[in-house]
Amino acid sequence: MNAVESSKPDQPINDLIANRWSPYAFSEVAVPEDDLQALFEAARWAPSSSNEQPWCYIVATKSEPTEFERVLSCLVPQNQAWAKAAPVLAIGCTRLKFAGNGQPNAHALHDLGLASANICLEATARGICVHQMAGILPDKAREVFQIPADAQAVTGIAIGYAADPAAAPAELRDRDKARRGRKPLAEFLFTGKWQAISKLAE
Amino acid sequence: MNAVESSKPDQPINDLIANRWSPYAFSEVAVPEDDLQALFEAARWAPSSSNEQPWCYIVATKSEPTEFERVLSCLVPQNQAWAKAAPVLAIGCTRLKFAGNGQPNAHALHDLGLASANICLEATARGICVHQMAGILPDKAREVFQIPADAQAVTGIAIGYAADPAAAPAELRDRDKARRGRKPLAEFLFTGKWQAISKLAE
Repeated sequence: MNAVESSKPDQPINDLIANRWSPYAFSEVAVPEDDLQALFEAARWAPSSSNEQPWCYIVATKSEPTEFERVLSCLVPQNQAWAKAAPVLAIGCTRLKFAGNGQPNAHALHDLGLASANICLEATARGICVHQMAGILPDKAREVFQIPADAQAVTGIAIGYAADPAAAPAELRDRDKARRGRKPLAEFLFTGKWQAISKLAE
Repeated sequence: MNAVESSKPDQPINDLIANRWSPYAFSEVAVPEDDLQALFEAARWAPSSSNEQPWCYIVATKSEPTEFERVLSCLVPQNQAWAKAAPVLAIGCTRLKFAGNGQPNAHALHDLGLASANICLEATARGICVHQMAGILPDKAREVFQIPADAQAVTGIAIGYAADPAAAPAELRDRDKARRGRKPLAEFLFTGKWQAISKLAE
């Protein structure tokens, strides 16, 4: 199997995980507030190191155009180009130190990932799509939102409803297709030694 | 609402997210291989920066006692004490550089979190519990499993079925209860400025 061509799970997994995807083409239809609240409530219930819950989100909807533009301005231009169509944008941030003792939290970024995955899955359950971006301008976000030194902007997050992919520019359709390929299990599931393929991956 | 006392979602979210929890008391019942495969298949379908899929897992079941002990030895003693009861243990690792160009992947830890969240949710859908641990011995894991310099062991992961909590030592029951508290949304959902509470959190 060509890893890049695989775009469907090899075995049955939950629909919320199998059907989640990150569209480049968003409809401008607004996301109801109670759905949005549920997405962040889902993040709230993620596990974290020492239950620190280091994640923070700065969110804006198009109903507040100035706030929306401020979040948009913290994405790299290539992401602004498509993300501006989404009705909701957020910046995923994390607190780098434990609140209790000020010590560095080595799992701060990891645990933001745990929380943001919950956002994606709660969204999928509601017919909403989420597209996370590594391509943001963290220094600009720090300045625009006055993010303190002990926290960090990590991801951009576009939230909304997928537009008909056929309506998207061909370039975006191709990027979208490429993103859906996956490595086989044998490339990341080991037993006994690094790169020793687990029998679970056979 | 006392943030620490909150142990139920404030609004309806998907059962897989609401019901996920990290037990300290595991039954010794083995997890069927096809269920385990599905957990890692779920990880496979997580999103990642540039679709790099940096996550790797080193896994062992009690059917291979030597391998199981090797993974167990990479947990801090406090975690070994309870995690040894679980039928499956894994070390969550991540590749720190992009395979294509060797550049640092600033989202390597974050994206491991995205993948491991999928493991938790697929497990919940199958009646299986997952308890992730920050408390591991990364240097020992590097030595034991020959993890290369451009990768890193990040988490321990216990997988299995929850034992009757009443059967767990009182100390573990108390730790478990404390872990289930959550901050209110107002502490991590902002609009316009750091710590400016979003109207979605009101």
